[in-house]
Amino acid sequence: MFENKDNSTTSIASLGEFGLIDHLTKNFKIKQKSTVKGIGDDAAVIACNSKNEIVITTDLLLEGVHFDLSYVPLKHLGYKSVIVNLSDVYAMNAEPTQITVSIAVSNRFPVEALEELYAGITAAAKIYNVDVVGGDTTSSTTGLLISVTALGTVKKGETVYRSGAKENDLLVVTGDLGAAYLGLQVLEREKEVFKVNPNSQPDLEPYTYLVERQLKPEARKDIPNLLNELGVKPTAMIDISDGLSSEIIHICKHSKVGCNLFEDKIPLDPQVITTCEEFNLDSTTIALSGGEDYELLFTISTEDYPKIKANPHLTVIGHMTHENEGTHLISRAGTKIPLIARGWNPIKDSE
Amino acid sequence: MFENKDNSTTSIASLGEFGLIDHLTKNFKIKQKSTVKGIGDDAAVIACNSKNEIVITTDLLLEGVHFDLSYVPLKHLGYKSVIVNLSDVYAMNAEPTQITVSIAVSNRFPVEALEELYAGITAAAKIYNVDVVGGDTTSSTTGLLISVTALGTVKKGETVYRSGAKENDLLVVTGDLGAAYLGLQVLEREKEVFKVNPNSQPDLEPYTYLVERQLKPEARKDIPNLLNELGVKPTAMIDISDGLSSEIIHICKHSKVGCNLFEDKIPLDPQVITTCEEFNLDSTTIALSGGEDYELLFTISTEDYPKIKANPHLTVIGHMTHENEGTHLISRAGTKIPLIARGWNPIKDSE
Repeated sequence: MFENKDNSTTSIASLGEFGLIDHLTKNFKIKQKSTVKGIGDDAAVIACNSKNEIVITTDLLLEGVHFDLSYVPLKHLGYKSVIVNLSDVYAMNAEPTQITVSIAVSNRFPVEALEELYAGITAAAKIYNVDVVGGDTTSSTTGLLISVTALGTVKKGETVYRSGAKENDLLVVTGDLGAAYLGLQVLEREKEVFKVNPNSQPDLEPYTYLVERQLKPEARKDIPNLLNELGVKPTAMIDISDGLSSEIIHICKHSKVGCNLFEDKIPLDPQVITTCEEFNLDSTTIALSGGEDYELLFTISTEDYPKIKANPHLTVIGHMTHENEGTHLISRAGTKIPLIARGWNPIKDSE
Repeated sequence: MFENKDNSTTSIASLGEFGLIDHLTKNFKIKQKSTVKGIGDDAAVIACNSKNEIVITTDLLLEGVHFDLSYVPLKHLGYKSVIVNLSDVYAMNAEPTQITVSIAVSNRFPVEALEELYAGITAAAKIYNVDVVGGDTTSSTTGLLISVTALGTVKKGETVYRSGAKENDLLVVTGDLGAAYLGLQVLEREKEVFKVNPNSQPDLEPYTYLVERQLKPEARKDIPNLLNELGVKPTAMIDISDGLSSEIIHICKHSKVGCNLFEDKIPLDPQVITTCEEFNLDSTTIALSGGEDYELLFTISTEDYPKIKANPHLTVIGHMTHENEGTHLISRAGTKIPLIARGWNPIKDSE
């Protein structure tokens, strides 16, 4: 009935994820006076009372698209499904408070498998101090699906959007980049080896950090507190789920600014560097496009630089420019290369 | 990896939907002081300010489990995906305010198909005055999936739970029951006829009300307002999504009461009666177990009876008893039959 064989129809792959969302949501009008921010940031913002706002964000994870159960333990998957949502809450400078968790499962999963999944969800809820307050459970005709929605709270006036970056602001990133993507490459390689020789024992020792970043990511719950203690309010913030270049472009687009990103400033873990050499990959490309790092990317006024200088969690990687100057990577050799969003795209034209 | 061939594992079908949810969520602890009510009602309740509470509810709809695109137009599906969530908000005596909509689609759907789906979502959002504030869009390896989360607001003290029914309270239902299920039977029959003879033209004229109740259900947005105007606060409330008997049992369980439901009081549309005769179905069974009616079921104090008496939207169908008396249907012949939840179960043991 809906086979896309008619040339007069448009394939969803031709629009890409963000193009598709823009296209489908352009007719939505905001009418409720409690809606402070609708679609277009890491989370929506709802007015709560004179002191606080509530943020809400949601993510879908599908077997065969977002995860492969041949090497992702269900407990880790449950944990990660919560983390990816909490990361969006922190990116609004908010504190997560409640989540709902919906799952669809085919009957190939026994109850014991779901117990593992929920053990991971429970662990994440405990560590991040959020309550699981609802959800839906249904059967699926194929694999496993998890839909998590997270609520958070933030003091009115403290909410940070993608849209507040100003020319000359400094671009700051937490932690280091690229490890989660390389962890996936290592796991995929071991899966192929296992297919050829099921008796092989993988030696993941050189890749422990990478595999942990892929299988058990953490959200930066420390950062909103740290910034508050340092007396710094970011002018704009976003979480790095798709890749650094994609997120920089989001901030630039929403803030109507340009950006110079310095290649030699991008923080990389030593395991990322050695594994990139082993896999013959360019570490900058991995950091720019790898995705799933769940670090925070934010901009601050230059006046705040002394407050964050030398903080081991924070790295200044660039600065914002006039919109007309565009968005560029300044390479180690000093070459100016336009940044392109090559982040992971869940709307892909695969069968 | 997770094939359920090991006899030491437990099949999810053996627990059923509610048993599975109880089993998986029993370890969740409430720690946030803003969480007023977690899992176990139509929606969770979050403290907002001294005057208001926020409710949150979520539902998953999967192709092949919850809908069949061979006779469900995508626009209707989009509309219905919103309605099923808003019905849960009204069941808390709350006013819906915002929704998030996540979809997963395989690439057999062209953009034009998704435009239809979103046209239905937009129509529902407009009619019910809710803002679409977020969501997620991803590809799926198989069919279409929709995950909607709804937020609503309610004055503190006005929130109605499943747990407040008292002995002697009257049991009241809005509208009429069973039509949505019969609409589905009519559509399924026409699908089979179409398979045999693709040139046949279905005559749906005698079933317009039934088909509309199945394909384009509405949520009872008028009821919280009506009750407010009548000066009636229900002691307990739930929406009828799975079937009358299942919902009565929920209220009885949460409120620790019993119930006598009178067969001759159950409101049925004339089309339900004639179509039950045609399909050789018992109309009481259909009303009790059909599901998808999205009417509201609530209990009121007997003192409030004069206020609702003769209201065309409300029918008193029974009364609450002591818990020890159990939950019964009193048949037209006066026989007392124990009520069993035979409502639609999305966790079924099918291949």
